[in-house]
Amino acid sequence: MATLPVMTRAEVEAFLEREFPQIHHGGRSYAVEAVGPLSACVRLAYHERHLRPGGTISGPAMMALADLTLYVAILANIGPVGLAVTTNLAFNFLRKPGRSDLLSECRLLKLGKRLAVGEVNLLSGSSPDPIAHVTSTYSIPNV
Amino acid sequence: MATLPVMTRAEVEAFLEREFPQIHHGGRSYAVEAVGPLSACVRLAYHERHLRPGGTISGPAMMALADLTLYVAILANIGPVGLAVTTNLAFNFLRKPGRSDLLSECRLLKLGKRLAVGEVNLLSGSSPDPIAHVTSTYSIPNV
Amino acid sequence: MATLPVMTRAEVEAFLEREFPQIHHGGRSYAVEAVGPLSACVRLAYHERHLRPGGTISGPAMMALADLTLYVAILANIGPVGLAVTTNLAFNFLRKPGRSDLLSECRLLKLGKRLAVGEVNLLSGSSPDPIAHVTSTYSIPNV
Amino acid sequence: MATLPVMTRAEVEAFLEREFPQIHHGGRSYAVEAVGPLSACVRLAYHERHLRPGGTISGPAMMALADLTLYVAILANIGPVGLAVTTNLAFNFLRKPGRSDLLSECRLLKLGKRLAVGEVNLLSGSSPDPIAHVTSTYSIPNV
Repeated sequence: MATLPVMTRAEVEAFLEREFPQIHHGGRSYAVEAVGPLSACVRLAYHERHLRPGGTISGPAMMALADLTLYVAILANIGPVGLAVTTNLAFNFLRKPGRSDLLSECRLLKLGKRLAVGEVNLLSGSSPDPIAHVTSTYSIPNV
Repeated sequence: MATLPVMTRAEVEAFLEREFPQIHHGGRSYAVEAVGPLSACVRLAYHERHLRPGGTISGPAMMALADLTLYVAILANIGPVGLAVTTNLAFNFLRKPGRSDLLSECRLLKLGKRLAVGEVNLLSGSSPDPIAHVTSTYSIPNV
Repeated sequence: MATLPVMTRAEVEAFLEREFPQIHHGGRSYAVEAVGPLSACVRLAYHERHLRPGGTISGPAMMALADLTLYVAILANIGPVGLAVTTNLAFNFLRKPGRSDLLSECRLLKLGKRLAVGEVNLLSGSSPDPIAHVTSTYSIPNV
Repeated sequence: MATLPVMTRAEVEAFLEREFPQIHHGGRSYAVEAVGPLSACVRLAYHERHLRPGGTISGPAMMALADLTLYVAILANIGPVGLAVTTNLAFNFLRKPGRSDLLSECRLLKLGKRLAVGEVNLLSGSSPDPIAHVTSTYSIPNV
């Protein structure tokens, strides 16, 4: 089912910059690392303002990251066609993240006309074991 | 299965104040409105810093609110016995919230020795229709 | 948001009988107990063929029941307009059911043009505590 | 985190045969295809009794298959230490399965002392695109 993305990594980043400047609120934290056929990878730079006491990255910061990564994967693969909205999001918290960047890897399980479904693995530091696993559904508006 | 809570609303609020001062980071937003048998209600004051463009309250702000409400319900019903952690969180986004406070109502579906499971309805303004519905599981450590 | 259902309990039951005779495969087990504004209730009669060893009702039998109840709630509230399909289903198993009928109570959280979202509580015997809680999304085809 | 399984494919199959003969109720449908480090694969033979009208495999049959595969993965990797129970199960239905066997591939995301979390991709025929994606949590009893 996979075909080449219709936007490059740089095009997606420029689009986000223009349309969603608020994701950089408080300083640049998110970087689109890669986009591919039905996939995307976004990095969240380690920063105090995403932390809870004990140095753990907060659940909401993880959620924002996972949601952004799924949006990037959709955007790169269908183009900037309008405001897709999250309808469903299921989080499994697996391990305590360390004091390092988070890498968020998304694979689209389905990219239909009305719904896109993806899974995201959140990785911390150099460990291959995900700290959280997310599945999420976006509703895609009629064009 | 419901019995009286072991902590009052005021005791829970004082506990949060002492142990989690960071939830008030940036200004006081959360208020514990009520605790009851297997239930709790928390209010998030409407404030610009929880918004996305268009005036919508952000998904991560809703997640933080729902998670806090479940924690308050557990705390009130078992007492301050240690660090319960969220293992699972499933969000359904239903409607766009308005420009008003969010009310978060939690009912515990199960309060076992090892796991607590609850559901949360998020309400906006005076509408009885939830803007989001959440189910979540906490793992309770051995005492 | 709630308005009167457009089909009665008897009409829904007759529709299921005609369109989905296979739900009675092996004997009549399901009975539509009630339909209401954004709600429905279906009973699963206790029967050996839904059991696992130890007398517990199987997870798949519970899933079939919850899914049917959500479908009944949608049907009763929008009428027999075509083949809605389940896109998402999240189960929390809470307690071991007893050797008795299961009652499945559905409340629609949202009934939109494209998506319907509902929650289901499964009750066993006379206990008010649910044995399982389910949230699910149906995709509604364009008419 | 992955280490070698503690049971072989044949040992798991013999265990299921002895402890859960009811999964073969109505004829042999399930075959354990492989077990590996934090993984397992189970096949469901195409058979009329798992169908809904139109030739589609029913949701509950898919659920039973996914649940069994996760159980097999846990069993193979921790040994036959007692009755793990499903606490949570989240299904995304992605595509209509064809008239062929279903292959169920499980990867354990976490195998802790108290909780095991896994994801399952269900594949139909020779397509690499999953027809359903499942995440699920098992509670592991104290030994």
